[in-house]
Amino acid sequence: MELDEVTISRAILATQMETMTEYLELDVAVVGGGPSGITCAALLAENGLKVGLIEKKLSIGGGMWGGGMMFPRIVVQDGAKRLLDHFGIASTEFEPGYHVAKSVEAVSKLTAAACTAGAEFFNLIAVEDVVVKGDGRVSGLVVNWSPVEMAGLHVDPLTIRCRAVVDATGHDATISHMVARKGADLTIKGEGYMWAERAESRIVDHTREVFPGLWVCGMAANAVAGECRMGPIFGGMLLSGERAAALVAAALRS
Amino acid sequence: MELDEVTISRAILATQMETMTEYLELDVAVVGGGPSGITCAALLAENGLKVGLIEKKLSIGGGMWGGGMMFPRIVVQDGAKRLLDHFGIASTEFEPGYHVAKSVEAVSKLTAAACTAGAEFFNLIAVEDVVVKGDGRVSGLVVNWSPVEMAGLHVDPLTIRCRAVVDATGHDATISHMVARKGADLTIKGEGYMWAERAESRIVDHTREVFPGLWVCGMAANAVAGECRMGPIFGGMLLSGERAAALVAAALRS
Amino acid sequence: MELDEVTISRAILATQMETMTEYLELDVAVVGGGPSGITCAALLAENGLKVGLIEKKLSIGGGMWGGGMMFPRIVVQDGAKRLLDHFGIASTEFEPGYHVAKSVEAVSKLTAAACTAGAEFFNLIAVEDVVVKGDGRVSGLVVNWSPVEMAGLHVDPLTIRCRAVVDATGHDATISHMVARKGADLTIKGEGYMWAERAESRIVDHTREVFPGLWVCGMAANAVAGECRMGPIFGGMLLSGERAAALVAAALRS
Amino acid sequence: MELDEVTISRAILATQMETMTEYLELDVAVVGGGPSGITCAALLAENGLKVGLIEKKLSIGGGMWGGGMMFPRIVVQDGAKRLLDHFGIASTEFEPGYHVAKSVEAVSKLTAAACTAGAEFFNLIAVEDVVVKGDGRVSGLVVNWSPVEMAGLHVDPLTIRCRAVVDATGHDATISHMVARKGADLTIKGEGYMWAERAESRIVDHTREVFPGLWVCGMAANAVAGECRMGPIFGGMLLSGERAAALVAAALRS
Amino acid sequence: MELDEVTISRAILATQMETMTEYLELDVAVVGGGPSGITCAALLAENGLKVGLIEKKLSIGGGMWGGGMMFPRIVVQDGAKRLLDHFGIASTEFEPGYHVAKSVEAVSKLTAAACTAGAEFFNLIAVEDVVVKGDGRVSGLVVNWSPVEMAGLHVDPLTIRCRAVVDATGHDATISHMVARKGADLTIKGEGYMWAERAESRIVDHTREVFPGLWVCGMAANAVAGECRMGPIFGGMLLSGERAAALVAAALRS
Amino acid sequence: MELDEVTISRAILATQMETMTEYLELDVAVVGGGPSGITCAALLAENGLKVGLIEKKLSIGGGMWGGGMMFPRIVVQDGAKRLLDHFGIASTEFEPGYHVAKSVEAVSKLTAAACTAGAEFFNLIAVEDVVVKGDGRVSGLVVNWSPVEMAGLHVDPLTIRCRAVVDATGHDATISHMVARKGADLTIKGEGYMWAERAESRIVDHTREVFPGLWVCGMAANAVAGECRMGPIFGGMLLSGERAAALVAAALRS
Amino acid sequence: MELDEVTISRAILATQMETMTEYLELDVAVVGGGPSGITCAALLAENGLKVGLIEKKLSIGGGMWGGGMMFPRIVVQDGAKRLLDHFGIASTEFEPGYHVAKSVEAVSKLTAAACTAGAEFFNLIAVEDVVVKGDGRVSGLVVNWSPVEMAGLHVDPLTIRCRAVVDATGHDATISHMVARKGADLTIKGEGYMWAERAESRIVDHTREVFPGLWVCGMAANAVAGECRMGPIFGGMLLSGERAAALVAAALRS
Amino acid sequence: MELDEVTISRAILATQMETMTEYLELDVAVVGGGPSGITCAALLAENGLKVGLIEKKLSIGGGMWGGGMMFPRIVVQDGAKRLLDHFGIASTEFEPGYHVAKSVEAVSKLTAAACTAGAEFFNLIAVEDVVVKGDGRVSGLVVNWSPVEMAGLHVDPLTIRCRAVVDATGHDATISHMVARKGADLTIKGEGYMWAERAESRIVDHTREVFPGLWVCGMAANAVAGECRMGPIFGGMLLSGERAAALVAAALRS
Repeated sequence: MELDEVTISRAILATQMETMTEYLELDVAVVGGGPSGITCAALLAENGLKVGLIEKKLSIGGGMWGGGMMFPRIVVQDGAKRLLDHFGIASTEFEPGYHVAKSVEAVSKLTAAACTAGAEFFNLIAVEDVVVKGDGRVSGLVVNWSPVEMAGLHVDPLTIRCRAVVDATGHDATISHMVARKGADLTIKGEGYMWAERAESRIVDHTREVFPGLWVCGMAANAVAGECRMGPIFGGMLLSGERAAALVAAALRS
Repeated sequence: MELDEVTISRAILATQMETMTEYLELDVAVVGGGPSGITCAALLAENGLKVGLIEKKLSIGGGMWGGGMMFPRIVVQDGAKRLLDHFGIASTEFEPGYHVAKSVEAVSKLTAAACTAGAEFFNLIAVEDVVVKGDGRVSGLVVNWSPVEMAGLHVDPLTIRCRAVVDATGHDATISHMVARKGADLTIKGEGYMWAERAESRIVDHTREVFPGLWVCGMAANAVAGECRMGPIFGGMLLSGERAAALVAAALRS
Repeated sequence: MELDEVTISRAILATQMETMTEYLELDVAVVGGGPSGITCAALLAENGLKVGLIEKKLSIGGGMWGGGMMFPRIVVQDGAKRLLDHFGIASTEFEPGYHVAKSVEAVSKLTAAACTAGAEFFNLIAVEDVVVKGDGRVSGLVVNWSPVEMAGLHVDPLTIRCRAVVDATGHDATISHMVARKGADLTIKGEGYMWAERAESRIVDHTREVFPGLWVCGMAANAVAGECRMGPIFGGMLLSGERAAALVAAALRS
Repeated sequence: MELDEVTISRAILATQMETMTEYLELDVAVVGGGPSGITCAALLAENGLKVGLIEKKLSIGGGMWGGGMMFPRIVVQDGAKRLLDHFGIASTEFEPGYHVAKSVEAVSKLTAAACTAGAEFFNLIAVEDVVVKGDGRVSGLVVNWSPVEMAGLHVDPLTIRCRAVVDATGHDATISHMVARKGADLTIKGEGYMWAERAESRIVDHTREVFPGLWVCGMAANAVAGECRMGPIFGGMLLSGERAAALVAAALRS
Repeated sequence: MELDEVTISRAILATQMETMTEYLELDVAVVGGGPSGITCAALLAENGLKVGLIEKKLSIGGGMWGGGMMFPRIVVQDGAKRLLDHFGIASTEFEPGYHVAKSVEAVSKLTAAACTAGAEFFNLIAVEDVVVKGDGRVSGLVVNWSPVEMAGLHVDPLTIRCRAVVDATGHDATISHMVARKGADLTIKGEGYMWAERAESRIVDHTREVFPGLWVCGMAANAVAGECRMGPIFGGMLLSGERAAALVAAALRS
Repeated sequence: MELDEVTISRAILATQMETMTEYLELDVAVVGGGPSGITCAALLAENGLKVGLIEKKLSIGGGMWGGGMMFPRIVVQDGAKRLLDHFGIASTEFEPGYHVAKSVEAVSKLTAAACTAGAEFFNLIAVEDVVVKGDGRVSGLVVNWSPVEMAGLHVDPLTIRCRAVVDATGHDATISHMVARKGADLTIKGEGYMWAERAESRIVDHTREVFPGLWVCGMAANAVAGECRMGPIFGGMLLSGERAAALVAAALRS
Repeated sequence: MELDEVTISRAILATQMETMTEYLELDVAVVGGGPSGITCAALLAENGLKVGLIEKKLSIGGGMWGGGMMFPRIVVQDGAKRLLDHFGIASTEFEPGYHVAKSVEAVSKLTAAACTAGAEFFNLIAVEDVVVKGDGRVSGLVVNWSPVEMAGLHVDPLTIRCRAVVDATGHDATISHMVARKGADLTIKGEGYMWAERAESRIVDHTREVFPGLWVCGMAANAVAGECRMGPIFGGMLLSGERAAALVAAALRS
Repeated sequence: MELDEVTISRAILATQMETMTEYLELDVAVVGGGPSGITCAALLAENGLKVGLIEKKLSIGGGMWGGGMMFPRIVVQDGAKRLLDHFGIASTEFEPGYHVAKSVEAVSKLTAAACTAGAEFFNLIAVEDVVVKGDGRVSGLVVNWSPVEMAGLHVDPLTIRCRAVVDATGHDATISHMVARKGADLTIKGEGYMWAERAESRIVDHTREVFPGLWVCGMAANAVAGECRMGPIFGGMLLSGERAAALVAAALRS
């Protein structure tokens, strides 16, 4: 078979442009490709919603790749073990209740599962602002290529419309801060001291709609609530992503 | 259940240190976590060999994440379609013979498959040099944390021993250059002009042992051979990774 | 009238994607948006050819914006005065034979004329390599977003096909160097000392096909030929762009 | 004809110095070379006023070159279509009411029109401060070469005198901030959330004299007024530039 | 004797991992390897406590290496002369009461003494946060490799547990600021003007427990207390380190 | 008296533009404002020639300001003491034959003397190239603002004409390298080991015309000749500058 | 005569160390080597006081070297013409009352005069803090090599004692800010809009003792007083330096 | 006792200046403060020679602080165990023949021992060049503050005289390269592949006088000889330092 470079280029351009155009309107935009965001996107997609995960970096996975202090392992407690199993991530029990998995396996299998479920990934895309119109809800995002910002260039963004936004941007809680900075009734309290046990137990409660149309999950949920800082354990992250998916799906169904 | 931060830290430290110590000696060290390297590592591990993939970046996947020009799609020709299927990567036929997959799905499923097969991933690790003793073979690698170099610090490396090294570092052919720079009988010709069809058809032939103990695959194979530059199509990469796995396995078995 | 953000985004995306897909194959790719490149593209387009001008920067115009030493004026000699007039650029005669124009006017009117004539501009696009197949001709370019390189990211390029390439990249002669570096029979001699008069008089002769499928114009022509460096006078640039357009048009017609 | 380098240098130096000296006093100084600023300068010059446009970058055009997300297209709504036509910028109707133009054509033709009308462009010039004397009006600007600041050098500026200043510096509203920082009764509220429709409809109202001698237009007008953020649509920009020109001309005539 | 690279690597990895695992729980964590911190760690270790000194830089010694203005000498007053003698640091009397030592000797002998006494040094480790649980005490530290931060990477930290923390981070008072930023009843007043005599005489009084579980010593003590800035004299530093060691030992014994 | 900002600006602009225009043609262009260059320019001007000193930095004086290792003193041997006296620079004899002066006084008085004598200083100007025409002589310089290069901007230079060029750019011998790089019969051997005595005694001999129209002085003379490196003593520098002035004056007179 | 490198080194080291030791105690420390600081130091030294001028850069002269917008000319009004004459700086009258001088000549002759008068210059020295003891007066400065800070090194400073400090650090008013930041009753109001005439007429009044032991002159005086910004005219600077010298001399005499 | 800041400053300045002046002439200059250099300096000083160790960094110890891959341990083989003991560095036997020590203890005790023996340390000093006069021997060094280079400043160096220079600058072999670059008959072959055993056994033989007056030790010895790269084991370093000390002492005694 003869290979034609232009056909290859056209194949990439045409299929992705179709996806980009189709995803100018979606059900849920999950911002941030760390563990809670991918979990949330995977479960929303399993649930049949049209979901896009927006990540400013080239790769998906965030801080999960590096494990703890560059030792590429993660720990998950009993309560979230079923999510590791759900996504096919192998683990061994280190001490009763502490399950250890490999971080590279965890991030690749989570991502693979989200792809299989039908979530679309938009990497190298940065969120510059939110759309809030007369109804006072977050109803869209202002997005741009992240290399444009990295290169210090002045290029205008485009806009996408969505029914729900999930802020899964970690302790920076980037989207929540964007909303708060423009005068919304939304206070971001910031993380407290580290206290893993408390932080893990509370994170699911803090996973909620913090502004009309905007849900928070993962470390962003604790940062908004002023909860304690989380330890190097991922159970709460996965459960928070699961919780956000359930809440958003329920809201969109109603 | 009460969570204890120190137990979490110990779980990470203890399990990964066991892995690190165990992998100071291995069968095959694959250097570079792009598509050909992951494929090679996955198939070697499926073949029962003790294989470690060494990647200097935080994430695995290399240039595959970004598709072509940040449009996250990849194209694979007919001849390599079976490898997409082998790794469970969905694809659609754009024109006869041209299969398009999503790049995020491709990289996460390749990596997931390698994990399942038992390959170990060592991310954030840089190769500083090779070990060559009296027998004139590459028999080990000199490694360090890559952030040490990024931070401009002066810290000594450690050494690992292996029976085979696969240079899957892309068109830089980093390991081959290290070997050549110190006087070995190994010429790196560098890539030629782009000519996708020719490059794709030749890459499998160029995948070979270029110095005792050192195999090249993927773009590194073409760079060493002075072959044409490859187009934005990944079939040859996957086939080259497969070929390297077969050659190395045969060599180690003999 | 109600404005819809998503319609605006779709309008931009859809119309430009159509252009990008259409221009994966073109007659002439002019690389470099300085005075000789724009002139060449404008005249080729006036001539009815399908021409794309590729510029790595955000703006078109190159060094012309700054005039001489940031005094935004350019000088054109008698022989090229008709080209200023052709593009509607006002000028005044400083001394007999020396016509002074404003650099901002010159660059904007040149560009405007090229647009009117139907040339397409692709800014923020970098050329990474050339395509040369079995016939030994430059028959395409390997392109990428330039911010990808500025941001230090590893993202693969795409390929376009063209019948002719014009290297209008200034004294760097970037495309000619790419061709030469890979072993072609093409020597880039580099500019000599400054000698404006000689450089101006010779540039049109040096504007020629230097490798099958590759023409040079502007300072790139003098750099390849080892000609003297040009003074701060633009007549030769414009004439060289005009000459390149004529040569390429003739070649493609034959 | 013999070309003499020194005559060329003298031609540039002498003609531009005459312009610089002449423009130490002018009617209107428009600061910022984006779409609203160029429109304003063009229309003021058509109106017979002595106007200088000051831009800190090398090229004129600002964020307009990059279109939306590097897709070089702009959209203009029905109400501003006549300004595209006025400046000779070709457009096509994408959906009823949405006109798409090429960004490179738009910026070059706007600039060309302003040149033809007699506006002077001062690129690579930064504004460091404003002159306000006993009458409490902005009556001049303190200017410097922008490369001096880019290079981190300590070089003193010069001063120009003008009857009116237009702040067209985009959402940074640089000149308004300079005035406000020194204690003036001028509050810059900052942009709100994105809401293109509302922002477009209000921008013309926000285009006004915000401090004696200082008018705002374009995004700077909305930023000062605390209006919603504008979408990737340029109609409001052009209309705001037109409005600023009308207001300033009226004020200077009275 | 034959040397085996892998045995060497294993020796380093195994012995240090044992130390790292053992020191996930310790009596006292001294943060900052300047003169007061090393003194404190040395004396605590001499006192039989399990003490770890955490330093973010590669080398231990902080600003002491450079003496005053790169003249590598330090001055110590009479009252602290006995500590120089205790650590075997040679000195000469310049004028009555002013003892001059070499800075390289001072820092190496202080460090050597701390090693001999049994203090463990953890260099290239950064403290990211503190652990405070329900009892409201600082009971642990959140630590990471410092090159991870220098390289701008996103990698999660690990946690260690300790009975006491000594903030010896100099005038930045890093740990005290971490505690204060999260809402604790702890005010860091910042240093006053330089007044060596007063600062030297007060520093021992300011060396105290400023928050449950957190002691300050050295310049951090004066910075928290709002005391005058210290001169280029090290007696107060050494005495403050000694005082902190005594206070912590007493507290842990009780 | 009322002060008018525009009159001040016009005074600066008008007087300096007159100077710039006048100095587009001069007798001697001395490049580099270190001790040998200033001496040469001062003596040429005393001799009645029209001389311009071109310096890329903001200030004149080069490495002389910092003395030796930031101790702002310079040493001059007996043979050059008369030049210190000539320029009114105070000195004291340290040991017989070694005269010590203050570096700030030396550089300011040298420069002041050159001003008084009528030399013109062009600071912040970089030389980009030389003019060599059919007669094979250096007959001009291609110059630009140095901040343009510091800021990484692309702006074209202007050209000046001169009868002689003196390369006083120190051990970089910048102008000589420019000439040599373009194929001239001029070898720059580079400095040898340090041997102050020999270097001092030979520098005057090495001060000569190295290419038609191009003289070297100061460290550039020794660098071209492959002479030993000079010690921290300035006598040879001053004498070389004096010698260059004499040679150039003689050549231009003939 | 034989030259000995070590004698040269010793000459520099010994004479400057004597100066440094001698100047650990002085009458007046002038901080900042711009026009007002040099004038002040020159006149204080002419007055017989022991004065040191401390400048963080390598060269003396500050922003004066660059004239206005890199056109190296300065303007001085009638009232300060006598100071130009006093220092031997040539000037020409541009319009009645406006005297133009060359900036290179002005800075070199001012500096030369200060040297002749006996002022000592300490370049490459940064002020890190002030000494204020029980009497509440500024009685010393904490100084360091400025390259230490530029290189990001942690090296301790030394202390000098003085009877008076003059803050001549320009509009940053660095020393005044240091004093104010630590709680002193000293408000720095910051410059107002530019209004050259007013600023020039008031600067002499604002030149005063702003805190016990601390005088301000030049732009620092206007910045502390909240006065209007000065135009590109230097008369006020010189007069302010003269005034500061008179006030300080009177205070120290009393 | 009252503390006086100026006395403190004077104490530092006066004692160190005496040392600096005294060490303008010395017996041996050891360049590089890594393990072999410190060992060499310590043993030379124990031998009664006047030795100065020059290190460009702020701290002494080089790469030894970081152990292997930031695990702060070093390994020493049996043959060099006696040197650990000689310097009082504790070690434990990991496997027969492999002794493990803590890297912080090793570097601090080595340095402390060198101080006790009387070696002088000159940190923050860079070597810029060597002195070679008519006898063709290295007889001095050209030195400067290293922050001057780090800050990109142009400041002249000073010169010291010595009877012998030891290049202990590691695999860069900086001093040997300086000598070779200027045409000496000295070839630096560069390190070979890693082969710890061979490198360790040969290093002592390669420790020798490679040019009149210049000895190499440590990794510099192997780099000059083209020997294999050393593993993360320090015995050979210490023995090489010992060997260099013996050779130099013998040479200077003869």
